[in-house]
Amino acid sequence: MELEFIAPLVIPNTTKMVLLSLDGLGGLPRPETGKSELETARIPHLHALAARSACGLIRHVGPGIIPGSGPGHLGLFGYDPIRFQVGRGVLEALGIDFELRPGDVAARGNFCTVDSGGRITDRRAGRIRTELCARLCQRLRAIRLDGVEVFVEPVKDHRFALVLRGPGLSGKLGETDPQALGVPPLPVKALHPEAEPTASLVNRFIESACQLLADSTPANMVLLRGFDRLPELPAFPEIFRMKSAGVAAYPMYRGLARLVGMEILKTGPSFADELATLRQHREAYDFFFLHYKDTDQAGEDGDFDAKVAALERLDSFIPEILPLRPDVLVVTGDHSSPALLKGHSWHPVPVLLSSAHCGADAVREFTERACAGGSLGVFPAHDLMPLILANALRLTKFGA
Amino acid sequence: MELEFIAPLVIPNTTKMVLLSLDGLGGLPRPETGKSELETARIPHLHALAARSACGLIRHVGPGIIPGSGPGHLGLFGYDPIRFQVGRGVLEALGIDFELRPGDVAARGNFCTVDSGGRITDRRAGRIRTELCARLCQRLRAIRLDGVEVFVEPVKDHRFALVLRGPGLSGKLGETDPQALGVPPLPVKALHPEAEPTASLVNRFIESACQLLADSTPANMVLLRGFDRLPELPAFPEIFRMKSAGVAAYPMYRGLARLVGMEILKTGPSFADELATLRQHREAYDFFFLHYKDTDQAGEDGDFDAKVAALERLDSFIPEILPLRPDVLVVTGDHSSPALLKGHSWHPVPVLLSSAHCGADAVREFTERACAGGSLGVFPAHDLMPLILANALRLTKFGA
Repeated sequence: MELEFIAPLVIPNTTKMVLLSLDGLGGLPRPETGKSELETARIPHLHALAARSACGLIRHVGPGIIPGSGPGHLGLFGYDPIRFQVGRGVLEALGIDFELRPGDVAARGNFCTVDSGGRITDRRAGRIRTELCARLCQRLRAIRLDGVEVFVEPVKDHRFALVLRGPGLSGKLGETDPQALGVPPLPVKALHPEAEPTASLVNRFIESACQLLADSTPANMVLLRGFDRLPELPAFPEIFRMKSAGVAAYPMYRGLARLVGMEILKTGPSFADELATLRQHREAYDFFFLHYKDTDQAGEDGDFDAKVAALERLDSFIPEILPLRPDVLVVTGDHSSPALLKGHSWHPVPVLLSSAHCGADAVREFTERACAGGSLGVFPAHDLMPLILANALRLTKFGA
Repeated sequence: MELEFIAPLVIPNTTKMVLLSLDGLGGLPRPETGKSELETARIPHLHALAARSACGLIRHVGPGIIPGSGPGHLGLFGYDPIRFQVGRGVLEALGIDFELRPGDVAARGNFCTVDSGGRITDRRAGRIRTELCARLCQRLRAIRLDGVEVFVEPVKDHRFALVLRGPGLSGKLGETDPQALGVPPLPVKALHPEAEPTASLVNRFIESACQLLADSTPANMVLLRGFDRLPELPAFPEIFRMKSAGVAAYPMYRGLARLVGMEILKTGPSFADELATLRQHREAYDFFFLHYKDTDQAGEDGDFDAKVAALERLDSFIPEILPLRPDVLVVTGDHSSPALLKGHSWHPVPVLLSSAHCGADAVREFTERACAGGSLGVFPAHDLMPLILANALRLTKFGA
């Protein structure tokens, strides 16, 4: 459903909601056992919770579509990820906790190596260490462009983020990475007439960077791609009329929560820290988004046993959440990351929704297979928020 | 699916269909027993029917959205209730069996009390009795407006319906109820330039009403809201190419069936009367919509046991329907009304579809939990009509 349809139905209440996103939650059966990560793990608390919850499977974008973390979480937050698209440059900046502002244009940067003729010899400059990347970024911050602020932020290895801030900027720009060796970087082209001034500015930046990096080895040039302007999303706390907090140890997920307008609560590097933060701020907010990263990491590494262990660790924290007695508790994920596939996948993700009014179903286990028979069915991620609001008694009747 | 897609696929046949809507059918488990109303009730005939039916859960508007009776039934009749919205004024008029015509504009009215300065002192005029309301409505029928017919119809207590009939009327009007005491009623404002003439007419009506009610106590003024024009819905019997009859003891449901163009069969005040009407007209129509109200009433009252009893009473009627041997028999509801929530709720509603070609599934009981695992899945209400037509062998192949 569209946000425009939901918003007028939202009514205030004092109920509390917790949305726990287990990154890359869904998996696939290990051929030797026929059991998925969730089916293999000893997760008694999640199973018990599922038994008294309404369960289902969430499809974040569409059948067969592999969601990135951006669309995956936007969907969970109630935004149709096909309608509200966020570019890679913006995600890169969000991923390092950079506080993007409306109108900012962001790009992904690589340090690369060029020969004396300016032709690319290594698109990643030998994957220089993050430390060197940071020093080179510091050097590039000397660049001044007319009428705009320039931010150059190290990400990891040879990667950095470029952000321009100022009036009238456009993200409709082509990339400079020719995706080939032996040729020079491409100049930035405007993909739309309105982007001409921004293209000129970025080309000035590249020219200056080339001069400033001339004596650096091996990172003596930059490549830029994924230009995008921060999209203007309707604000989550306004649409859903609730004080909303994001609690995430990883910067990317704080960035996504900030993007939709949640307040970001300072927390530590572990999930235990996140829970402490939740406890501390329990009274001050209506809605909490919590993020657990380990499941995805293990899935991406193709480490089935590590993913099982990550699920079991998470399960051991469930008894710490329940005493907080949220009126609605949802456990799900932003996409599947089966160890078998070593990365994100298109498989719909189990979801459990627990509330006094959830109408428990026949599902007794929190697994892909069991949740497929749940009363929530298989449904789009952006329909989860209306379900959460309904269970929190925060939606009024549609039509008399 | 859209009606425009379905309509060209419809072919005629001699098959008979019965759609039985149990108002507010779905429920929630009683905490003490963990069993819902349907799970508690002794309903052997419905269970037996479910066992030889295709089953599923119907979602009338969207996940989490609480359907009113209007959207709930429009969905069952095949109309996407988000696309085809019906305003409160229209529903109020339908609810008293008023025969609205295309182009009519309807509003909900309250008799209220104003002081000598015209300021509201009671927005409901002390909830005057329906009898007095009827006499005051009779008085207001003396009002004449240029070029339009005026209908003033009592509803209940202080509530009445105002209907204007004539060319070029618009429902895009603001309300006159300031939702506050100590201030005068608002004048009606046009929310769109096309509504200016209608706004003038309604303001004339209010002025006259004020004069005619001057000596009445306590109901000496009117408040109007929920203005709406009867929406132009594609006609059910034409789209689906079948003689269609609505059989409902309650006026609101006759009104909704009439709204989509079904013929309304005269019936008595009980469900037994409805069945007698069905038997009597069995040969004359292809499609019958039957409505059973008691389930909703008990749910709205929060009376779990009464809802169980209403389900058991309904179950006892099933053996009277089966001998009529409809080619397709569907039992479902327009929304859930769990006794636990004392009102409409967002929970999807069990549905069973019985036909010689329905492809029975593993479902053996007509309950929320069991139907969640049925072969129909969880699906939008407006996809039910295509399923009914298909099972009645009234849809042709799509594409060669």
